[in-house]
Amino acid sequence: MSANPNLPLVGIVMGSRSDWETMQHAAQKLELLGVPHEVRVVSAHRTPDALFDYAAQAAQRGLRAIIAGAGGAAHLPGMLAAKTAVPVLGVPVQSKALNGMDSLLSIVQMPAGVPVATFAIGNAGASNAALFAAAMLSAEHPQIAAALEAFRQRQTEEVASNDDPRK
Amino acid sequence: MSANPNLPLVGIVMGSRSDWETMQHAAQKLELLGVPHEVRVVSAHRTPDALFDYAAQAAQRGLRAIIAGAGGAAHLPGMLAAKTAVPVLGVPVQSKALNGMDSLLSIVQMPAGVPVATFAIGNAGASNAALFAAAMLSAEHPQIAAALEAFRQRQTEEVASNDDPRK
Amino acid sequence: MSANPNLPLVGIVMGSRSDWETMQHAAQKLELLGVPHEVRVVSAHRTPDALFDYAAQAAQRGLRAIIAGAGGAAHLPGMLAAKTAVPVLGVPVQSKALNGMDSLLSIVQMPAGVPVATFAIGNAGASNAALFAAAMLSAEHPQIAAALEAFRQRQTEEVASNDDPRK
Amino acid sequence: MSANPNLPLVGIVMGSRSDWETMQHAAQKLELLGVPHEVRVVSAHRTPDALFDYAAQAAQRGLRAIIAGAGGAAHLPGMLAAKTAVPVLGVPVQSKALNGMDSLLSIVQMPAGVPVATFAIGNAGASNAALFAAAMLSAEHPQIAAALEAFRQRQTEEVASNDDPRK
Amino acid sequence: MSANPNLPLVGIVMGSRSDWETMQHAAQKLELLGVPHEVRVVSAHRTPDALFDYAAQAAQRGLRAIIAGAGGAAHLPGMLAAKTAVPVLGVPVQSKALNGMDSLLSIVQMPAGVPVATFAIGNAGASNAALFAAAMLSAEHPQIAAALEAFRQRQTEEVASNDDPRK
Amino acid sequence: MSANPNLPLVGIVMGSRSDWETMQHAAQKLELLGVPHEVRVVSAHRTPDALFDYAAQAAQRGLRAIIAGAGGAAHLPGMLAAKTAVPVLGVPVQSKALNGMDSLLSIVQMPAGVPVATFAIGNAGASNAALFAAAMLSAEHPQIAAALEAFRQRQTEEVASNDDPRK
Amino acid sequence: MSANPNLPLVGIVMGSRSDWETMQHAAQKLELLGVPHEVRVVSAHRTPDALFDYAAQAAQRGLRAIIAGAGGAAHLPGMLAAKTAVPVLGVPVQSKALNGMDSLLSIVQMPAGVPVATFAIGNAGASNAALFAAAMLSAEHPQIAAALEAFRQRQTEEVASNDDPRK
Amino acid sequence: MSANPNLPLVGIVMGSRSDWETMQHAAQKLELLGVPHEVRVVSAHRTPDALFDYAAQAAQRGLRAIIAGAGGAAHLPGMLAAKTAVPVLGVPVQSKALNGMDSLLSIVQMPAGVPVATFAIGNAGASNAALFAAAMLSAEHPQIAAALEAFRQRQTEEVASNDDPRK
Repeated sequence: MSANPNLPLVGIVMGSRSDWETMQHAAQKLELLGVPHEVRVVSAHRTPDALFDYAAQAAQRGLRAIIAGAGGAAHLPGMLAAKTAVPVLGVPVQSKALNGMDSLLSIVQMPAGVPVATFAIGNAGASNAALFAAAMLSAEHPQIAAALEAFRQRQTEEVASNDDPRK
Repeated sequence: MSANPNLPLVGIVMGSRSDWETMQHAAQKLELLGVPHEVRVVSAHRTPDALFDYAAQAAQRGLRAIIAGAGGAAHLPGMLAAKTAVPVLGVPVQSKALNGMDSLLSIVQMPAGVPVATFAIGNAGASNAALFAAAMLSAEHPQIAAALEAFRQRQTEEVASNDDPRK
Repeated sequence: MSANPNLPLVGIVMGSRSDWETMQHAAQKLELLGVPHEVRVVSAHRTPDALFDYAAQAAQRGLRAIIAGAGGAAHLPGMLAAKTAVPVLGVPVQSKALNGMDSLLSIVQMPAGVPVATFAIGNAGASNAALFAAAMLSAEHPQIAAALEAFRQRQTEEVASNDDPRK
Repeated sequence: MSANPNLPLVGIVMGSRSDWETMQHAAQKLELLGVPHEVRVVSAHRTPDALFDYAAQAAQRGLRAIIAGAGGAAHLPGMLAAKTAVPVLGVPVQSKALNGMDSLLSIVQMPAGVPVATFAIGNAGASNAALFAAAMLSAEHPQIAAALEAFRQRQTEEVASNDDPRK
Repeated sequence: MSANPNLPLVGIVMGSRSDWETMQHAAQKLELLGVPHEVRVVSAHRTPDALFDYAAQAAQRGLRAIIAGAGGAAHLPGMLAAKTAVPVLGVPVQSKALNGMDSLLSIVQMPAGVPVATFAIGNAGASNAALFAAAMLSAEHPQIAAALEAFRQRQTEEVASNDDPRK
Repeated sequence: MSANPNLPLVGIVMGSRSDWETMQHAAQKLELLGVPHEVRVVSAHRTPDALFDYAAQAAQRGLRAIIAGAGGAAHLPGMLAAKTAVPVLGVPVQSKALNGMDSLLSIVQMPAGVPVATFAIGNAGASNAALFAAAMLSAEHPQIAAALEAFRQRQTEEVASNDDPRK
Repeated sequence: MSANPNLPLVGIVMGSRSDWETMQHAAQKLELLGVPHEVRVVSAHRTPDALFDYAAQAAQRGLRAIIAGAGGAAHLPGMLAAKTAVPVLGVPVQSKALNGMDSLLSIVQMPAGVPVATFAIGNAGASNAALFAAAMLSAEHPQIAAALEAFRQRQTEEVASNDDPRK
Repeated sequence: MSANPNLPLVGIVMGSRSDWETMQHAAQKLELLGVPHEVRVVSAHRTPDALFDYAAQAAQRGLRAIIAGAGGAAHLPGMLAAKTAVPVLGVPVQSKALNGMDSLLSIVQMPAGVPVATFAIGNAGASNAALFAAAMLSAEHPQIAAALEAFRQRQTEEVASNDDPRK
């Protein structure tokens, strides 16, 4: 099955416009791997109803994963997960005072029953959430699988082809 | 204005039945001070719709404060605050692995715009949230003000009347 | 009852002049919402008597809430709360070495019996303490209630009206 | 497509026999949801070759997800992820001295390029990794989707049917 | 000058009766070294006026040092130091949730201008505060100096005389 | 007794020349208060014999207190305290990676038997160690007592005379 | 060259008798691998001269490594390293209040110029320090190399031979 | 035995080219001490097979120590140690969000059975790992021993020759 760019398979959502600096790394990776996606600001605290609507419609809209980034008392990923069975991937955005430790704990320490798959604080986490979403989609989408395989191959070769850090 | 026990002024909610061990300290203090209140389990993650309903109706039901206790990725207080202008008082319940540091940060580090008044981790926080709610109500409810004043007086006297720890 | 700007309902106090950079966010929010307030530097450690006087007179001067910001071993909010039944809202100012973790724990971990309602470290906490004070005053002050409602409405609309972070 | 119990879709691996106390919660949830799975001890440090073999064969053996639990300097999930494109779900096991904070950071802070989906420290994380794996499999396996839906429904009802913690 | 047991040179104060379990180690060491002292419960939060009185009279009552133990948001040592020039030695009592890290930071992170000499969390800190007080008094009190010297000698000999831990 | 500037009463030592940026605040305060003092770099790790010599001669050279600043695995204060009965005041210098949390714990968590009086991380701690040393010397040195009293008075007045942070 | 049991190659030292519960794991591993060793209590703080003597004589006494365990403000490993060029292996003993985080940072955060090789907090660290010492000695001592190789083989086989945690 | 520069005795490896900024301090120290060494980028996560090959051949290629630097979920040192009996020295590289605390715990908290000798976070750790490697080689390589002795002597003299930080 080839992926239709008009039908997003992955939703990238974030709690604030300022999170885009981090979350664009997720978008770039999905772009690179040819994964149809959409991008939205949905705030757990300032637009809770929009959050609930987004989650409630995710499955029927065909989303297969939601990548949610937030900082501080980061409730967005967990509340999405509370409202949909679509897998939610959480990205802790680096916060000002506590460097994202608050974001990380607020996302990863979910109680038994409602999982959020959590990735590293900041840009690396955003990239990896996208790669993980692509891996989830690989079984059904051979093109994504192939793109992911090529990406992994390339990053291995980049290290292997020049392993002298002084050059 | 005297408080009518049939109309709760304060709602105590918690994310799980196991939080009652902590949150009963809030109930006991409200009882002691004659503040009409109700107690409910409302899980941000397992019953998100009930959470939204509770928050949406809080003001019209006459609640003047909501004391919300939760542990781990504690989203209950913040999501209530997102859905109601009624003041929300958050109590971080002590968690197993991280001793409540995760609960504390998930509650206190709210973004600008949606406040949660946060109290200490565990029993002390539950007690203090109740005392704070009573203080909030004191201007309009002289009986609560008097009960609170008496409580503060008593606790001062208990220390002052016997300040030798060896006895 | 309409609020008289000559009679402050909220006192903003801080431990040092340098805390003003943070605490001005509380003043701005109270200004925006039309909450009459005053601003003072009162140091728990350098002017303890002034602190005690301020707290002792708070109720009779008509203050309905005190917003107290401090950093490091932040004793100001807790000591105010020890001396007055007026609700104290604590704002942990971000400290140099420990990023405000010391300020947060010094404010939030109050023992049972003397509550301080604590908010996030830094600017967000200062803003939220002001919003919380306004919410506390809303029952008696319909104009504040209306201003707060309008503020919340506006911040929801700001997110909702443009939820594409790339624009 | 109905799942064949003889062909495991999910592999549960752990770094040490003592991790079983935690990881059995993953197995129980997969059991409950009818997800065919296998369980293995594979130590990143004591049996690194077995780890590499397991990862290298995971895709061709039909595994669609690997749930990996480890404590302390928890390298198992990350090294599996380095060797296979099959999604790896990491569970930080609570460690003795540092309560699993070391396990959590060793698992979640993966560099960009090689993702590990991380869950909460301890039993809750093990349960949630299993629920997440089931959610991943739901698109292709209607029976798992139905079982997961039923599970979520049930846990919502359990809270909703009795929301008085004093009973 | 020989020390008169009727005139305490050191005051041991603590925020709560439950701190005595820790602070008795300070009393025992002062007893051992022949340092006249007194013991009191004075709560920064529940008896703030008693705290101010104690501090205000400390110098004229002849106290040469105050050892103050407290847990959680531990304001007692810092507020004593704010009100007297008599040296204050702070002992962080081990707290329930955060193991005394909150107590330590609340005591040690005093702002420039008002020092509190801080010692280790718990029993070791209580013992060491007493030893430090004795060292401070040694210049003027030869008997205390001699007792302290003997104590140090003895503890060195105890290790040196049997340095095989298997016996 | 007036203090002779040729005979230092306080020694300021630090583990590295780079610590001077912090420790000069101790020197400035002693200067201001007229406390005769000396300044030295003595490294616990690079010049351990010099450290032992310094400590061993401290009492006979007339030192009444040693202020020792160090960062990271900060062993200087504790090893001085191990070798002399002269009171040692420890100042945790802010370290690069861990912001001085390593310095603080390495200094304050001394075992029972060998005390180090610890002050805040960084400049505030250096200032306060000097003020504390002056307080220790006040009983015997009326001039220092008077200077300290004047300093405290002045800092109180500075806050009190202008308590409006907006000016 | 075969190792002579009468001439210890490795010294195990610890700051207090109570550390033996942890450090015996180092002794057991050295015993198992046939590495001649000695065991001593040497306190950095209570017997600093013994520490210096031990370090100063280590090389000429034929010691090839010193395993040093200590807790809290753990200065023993670093001070040994300051006084001898013999490699020092540090073991952070788990402390009461801070679970060994203080011990770890006090040992590992040595400044450039004086290294201490640090291992995990507690029993695992003690075992691993011994294994590391054996690895260091393997080049010159074929019997130790063989014993170490056999140990590693055995631990791999123990995991590999039974990788089902349910049995 | 004099060291042959064509046969490296020490391998410096790092997880990413960006780690060179830190790890060059190890190379500089080995250069200074005349220890033949090689430098390589080997990523645990992006080139796991290269890591295994490097470790598997380390002993037969004559390496006597491997210095491995990595940041975040730093698996490189531990996985090398899992695959070779050659001593592995781990250097935690300072990470962006968590300042290297994640790197430190991921390296030092190895389970019993597979040791990694860990050094300080960042440049100091890289320098010290090199000095430690030199110390390990000193018994067999008198020239290295002499160079190390000279280095230690020099650094002691540098402090001792000018111990006034104001100059």
